[in-house]
Amino acid sequence: MRIALIGYGSVGQAFARLLERQRRRFPFRITAIQTRQRTAYDPHGLPLEPAWGPPVPVGEFLDRAAPEVVIEITSLNPVDGEPAISHIRAAFARSLPVITANKGPIAHAYTALRAEAAARHILFRFESTVMDGSPVFNLVRNNLPGVTIEGISGVLNSTTKVVLAEMAQGRSLAEGIARAQRIGIAEADPSYDIDGWDSAAKTAALANVLMDANVTPQSVQRTGIGALTPEAVRRAAAEGTVLALVSRVRREADGALTLTTQPERLARHDLLANVDGTSNVLLLHTDLMGTQGIVSVSPGVEQTAYGLFADLVDIAQQL
Amino acid sequence: MRIALIGYGSVGQAFARLLERQRRRFPFRITAIQTRQRTAYDPHGLPLEPAWGPPVPVGEFLDRAAPEVVIEITSLNPVDGEPAISHIRAAFARSLPVITANKGPIAHAYTALRAEAAARHILFRFESTVMDGSPVFNLVRNNLPGVTIEGISGVLNSTTKVVLAEMAQGRSLAEGIARAQRIGIAEADPSYDIDGWDSAAKTAALANVLMDANVTPQSVQRTGIGALTPEAVRRAAAEGTVLALVSRVRREADGALTLTTQPERLARHDLLANVDGTSNVLLLHTDLMGTQGIVSVSPGVEQTAYGLFADLVDIAQQL
Repeated sequence: MRIALIGYGSVGQAFARLLERQRRRFPFRITAIQTRQRTAYDPHGLPLEPAWGPPVPVGEFLDRAAPEVVIEITSLNPVDGEPAISHIRAAFARSLPVITANKGPIAHAYTALRAEAAARHILFRFESTVMDGSPVFNLVRNNLPGVTIEGISGVLNSTTKVVLAEMAQGRSLAEGIARAQRIGIAEADPSYDIDGWDSAAKTAALANVLMDANVTPQSVQRTGIGALTPEAVRRAAAEGTVLALVSRVRREADGALTLTTQPERLARHDLLANVDGTSNVLLLHTDLMGTQGIVSVSPGVEQTAYGLFADLVDIAQQL
Repeated sequence: MRIALIGYGSVGQAFARLLERQRRRFPFRITAIQTRQRTAYDPHGLPLEPAWGPPVPVGEFLDRAAPEVVIEITSLNPVDGEPAISHIRAAFARSLPVITANKGPIAHAYTALRAEAAARHILFRFESTVMDGSPVFNLVRNNLPGVTIEGISGVLNSTTKVVLAEMAQGRSLAEGIARAQRIGIAEADPSYDIDGWDSAAKTAALANVLMDANVTPQSVQRTGIGALTPEAVRRAAAEGTVLALVSRVRREADGALTLTTQPERLARHDLLANVDGTSNVLLLHTDLMGTQGIVSVSPGVEQTAYGLFADLVDIAQQL
């Protein structure tokens, strides 16, 4: 199966390494890569470090690449999900199935993209967008038939977890951020995490897919952790509670959804408070199955790459 | 789709109620039920309280019932998994797909049953045997393609969790058992839980299915919680640790599997120690996806019934 990658950062490279290791069992080949600055093509499969040519518009890239599946993994634009959404539409216009690890399109435009894919009978998958490749969307789709998701709660952002853990031990916000950057989970500009935008985008994505919300990250009532003082965090800890940046989706009595991302004081025995380090936890509150919890323990770029791979196997089985 | 139930206790009755509520979307009907004392048949579908006739041997029951799927939910015989294993074989002999919530056959005879089902091209499903219907086996089968499970850890038994929590607060083993019985999770004879047999059977089932172990519960190095004193449990709590009955499967350097179920002192921040009340947690240690955690929050008989339903939908889609 011929795969075109749009984007080739750390996730793309981890994905390429994973495909190499799995080639014997799974005959997938990356035959084209586009980044902002360059392109590469080889119908027989590209090496991990391909010979690069000049960049071209995405439509031209796809026409020349002639792939069977497109994987969109450009870096996130948190404001509107572009240009990833346009990349996905360029693939849809060519009747190509799409996999993305980019939460922007799912957080900003899922309802429209789902309809466009359905109208063309194209598969569209996005397992890696929220829990770094842990089965969430595929779990609900494949393993929970007949179940209605009635609510969602989660601690979905690793950087704020690490920062709050540092602050609970008396260090400042800046020291906490520096630590998250040292261990490689925070960006040079950490405001996207600290201000709650990453969690809000994941919250919107979960609500769009699992609860048919048709919202954007801007729909989420959002408070980051930037205004929390080390004293407040330490006091919460001293009083036997844990401060965490918690995301919740609730269906109100009138059927409307309330989406929040905000610091909450959790009891120390609360499952949301007790997933350590960089691990994330997601709780799905359901009608038939009570509450189901998914924990992604210290996920990294390899797990995100695996989520793409799982989606790819799913698509390959259905083509 | 015509379903024959073998066994009609609390799980069977919850399953029958679930089918009634889902009938509009899922056309499944229970057309025959067998228990130790009686049988009932109606090709158009049985009511929740059927008119009972006399018991017959299982083969006769299946021949008269002529179902499309057999669901085995008799109560567990921990020593050898019988008569459930014979019930399953009686269904296989008639080329009928089987679903079971009974961990005995999976813990004692999975490797043989899998081979027998495969030889006859029959589907065999058992999602509810370990985590009360939470997706575990179906998660690995459907959502983790190419992944090898390298190890398993879990706190898999609710009764011992409740008992140890009571003992940590200064109460005796007997008082803890009485509480577990009051909230409806412990049997009149709690020794199966307290002595670790329930956890050992789940450990063997997980290892058989996910790590191709071909073991029985007797293969598990097993220590129950009966010898723990309230003082030891309280002391562990006072020292900032948590005592839990932990099950583990490890692959040793020589490829052999080590299976254990024993009380362990866990750090308070250990995920295994932090799932409260009657909730269970399972960690799958994998090659490609790091550690994936599954939490079943306060599961009850409805969740176990749902696991049967999920297996049924899976089989219906493949028939």
